[in-house]
Amino acid sequence: MKAEIIAVGSELLLGQITNTNAQFISARLAEIGVDVYYHTVIGDNPERLVDAIKIAEQRADVLLFTGGLGPTKDDLTKEAIARHLGIELDYDDAAIEHITDYFERQGRVMTPNNKKQALVFKNSTVLKNYTGMAPGMAYTNDENTYILMPGPPHEMKPMFEKEVIPYLLNLDERQEVIVSRVLNCFGIGEAELESRIESILETQTNPTVAPLASPKGVTLRLTAKATSVEEAFAHIAPVEADIRALIGEYIFGIDDETLFSKAVDLLQTSQLTIAAAESLTGGQFMSQLASITGASAVFGGGMVVYSIDQKVKQLGLNREALEQHGVVSEYCAAQMADAVRRQFASDIGIGLTGAAGPDSHDGQPAGTVWIGISYKGESHTYRLQLSGMRNTNRMRTTNFAYHYLIQLLESEKLSSKDI
Amino acid sequence: MKAEIIAVGSELLLGQITNTNAQFISARLAEIGVDVYYHTVIGDNPERLVDAIKIAEQRADVLLFTGGLGPTKDDLTKEAIARHLGIELDYDDAAIEHITDYFERQGRVMTPNNKKQALVFKNSTVLKNYTGMAPGMAYTNDENTYILMPGPPHEMKPMFEKEVIPYLLNLDERQEVIVSRVLNCFGIGEAELESRIESILETQTNPTVAPLASPKGVTLRLTAKATSVEEAFAHIAPVEADIRALIGEYIFGIDDETLFSKAVDLLQTSQLTIAAAESLTGGQFMSQLASITGASAVFGGGMVVYSIDQKVKQLGLNREALEQHGVVSEYCAAQMADAVRRQFASDIGIGLTGAAGPDSHDGQPAGTVWIGISYKGESHTYRLQLSGMRNTNRMRTTNFAYHYLIQLLESEKLSSKDI
Repeated sequence: MKAEIIAVGSELLLGQITNTNAQFISARLAEIGVDVYYHTVIGDNPERLVDAIKIAEQRADVLLFTGGLGPTKDDLTKEAIARHLGIELDYDDAAIEHITDYFERQGRVMTPNNKKQALVFKNSTVLKNYTGMAPGMAYTNDENTYILMPGPPHEMKPMFEKEVIPYLLNLDERQEVIVSRVLNCFGIGEAELESRIESILETQTNPTVAPLASPKGVTLRLTAKATSVEEAFAHIAPVEADIRALIGEYIFGIDDETLFSKAVDLLQTSQLTIAAAESLTGGQFMSQLASITGASAVFGGGMVVYSIDQKVKQLGLNREALEQHGVVSEYCAAQMADAVRRQFASDIGIGLTGAAGPDSHDGQPAGTVWIGISYKGESHTYRLQLSGMRNTNRMRTTNFAYHYLIQLLESEKLSSKDI
Repeated sequence: MKAEIIAVGSELLLGQITNTNAQFISARLAEIGVDVYYHTVIGDNPERLVDAIKIAEQRADVLLFTGGLGPTKDDLTKEAIARHLGIELDYDDAAIEHITDYFERQGRVMTPNNKKQALVFKNSTVLKNYTGMAPGMAYTNDENTYILMPGPPHEMKPMFEKEVIPYLLNLDERQEVIVSRVLNCFGIGEAELESRIESILETQTNPTVAPLASPKGVTLRLTAKATSVEEAFAHIAPVEADIRALIGEYIFGIDDETLFSKAVDLLQTSQLTIAAAESLTGGQFMSQLASITGASAVFGGGMVVYSIDQKVKQLGLNREALEQHGVVSEYCAAQMADAVRRQFASDIGIGLTGAAGPDSHDGQPAGTVWIGISYKGESHTYRLQLSGMRNTNRMRTTNFAYHYLIQLLESEKLSSKDI
């Protein structure tokens, strides 16, 4: 079953709102095995709407419309489609009652244009609106299925879940399911990742394997079709194992896991606490810890020591030694990590120092970064040479610090019980 | 001039990401007087891409493509368009150099598939990528203009602003200039702002006045057309004055100014230094200071004191008093602000404490926040009752802290010289 999603609304073409409906509907259709080949957005113009419908009828089985079912003059989706298909509109009694109730509950008088919302295609399936007034409708003829839904996402989503999905599953005789599993990677570029797993990317069809790059790293989405969820995951498992054999060291989590949630999970499991002393990142590493619900179990606090004066004053670092090594140095990162670990009585200390840019800092070129991790008297240090803008470099420093922390926690199987 | 925006990427049709690019491009095209009649989204499939192009060529003058310029196998936009138009691809020397530099700066080895990104249409205008590797390109034949841009929004947006807009304005023979001035507001909702300046919104045509809400606040974009930049700004000036007369207290900056850059500017001008003690925000307030180039002139460091133990140990707060007032209290925020100001020998201290959620914290419901600002022995405190998710509440707390700081700096004309 092939689908096209058609959003109707001039506000979309003027850039006033984003078409989030198309994303929501696409994701849910993928899960039930309906292929979406096109999204189309058109304005509140009946001629262009009909032109778009004629194109969509040639390339899709199911046409899903959002928008244009409301009471105002520019809501014309159902009228245009009815005229195009040569079918009549008729008042739906349940919808009239629903709209009348809606106004009565608010103590407002119903204006005549609101009754227009209760008009539906004759012989169509009326789709209930759980969170608004205008009903949707579903209509199937010999060639195509037409699904009309309201535009506001909070009205469309419940209608889609409770009314449209059952309607589509009932149409579809295959009863196929689609499941996805996302492998989240860090520390490897998209191109290099792809060349490492090239043989898998080229041969795999079920599951399909799709890489996607974002500032947070690269994800690999494995998507399988089958007649049951269990069977679909059984298709995924051996391919995931093959991928892990090739690039396992870069995969830090699955599905919704982030570098930050993974680190907090590992710290919680190992019953370890953490503190950070941040210079170029200015508190970003710690803010990401605090973004995770439950972080307080592993995180009590830390320091931002932006100036050399505060590095000396707050953490007790040796000014002469700092001046000798420079503040953008392995020495400084290691000292910051160790000092903050002690001062906050934590198991692990993180030190972050570097030249964020745009200018060089303390003799080191922009993008030079040192990360220190202190644990059990051992000092682990990492050097980065970044090439982005100031705040990209700061974000990448934070991400890399989590990446190295996760690798350390996983490889050494650190545990507070060892102490 | 009529335009169609064509996004290429299976991740859009699978619902993994939203087509925010289409919104951004649409809004900017509206400002320069280009009508957008259609958005189309297609997957990484060359045949369907060419089918969509053939349709778009019939109904639009300018076809703007996003996505599919990257190094991987499923990046096929330019190859498909080149084949369709019968034009050749050639390596662009500047782009090869740009990509090679990119890898060298990171100390990574360039894989062959990355060089593919430097292939551009022969005889096209190459569009520089300011924040990534793959260049864009613009090509005009007798019937249509084709603009190809990368998919990641942080790459597409600077390219669109700096390369595509001038290209389109140059195509257009009207030789009209369009200038925009953005008024950045905070502390007022979009609906209230709209009702306060309703008369202006309803009557203004040159400049147009467009409100846009985002998590960072509300912006008002004033866009004027004229035959010269000076004339266009002369249209804007009186309307801006009218708007400022109505809602001036909520306008903190113009164009690219953020709450953060504005605060750093004011601190620099007043020669004041700042330190912060953060609990629920976990370092986010300070990280935003550090995001601004030149922050080191006003910011030496600060504390994250997430647990009550660290509030007592690091800042010397009184445990009994904290237990009596609770950590989510006016008392705690004021004490944190004062203690961190002293400890970091700063002019101004900020204290941030609250219940980020999802759970209540120390007896206070999620969303309860106290902000303290300490200056010259005076304590200013502010209470927020937020209703968002955990990280929305944390971000809004940071934004409100900057908002109150700016109001204080502007209203009291604080100056270190007064001390």
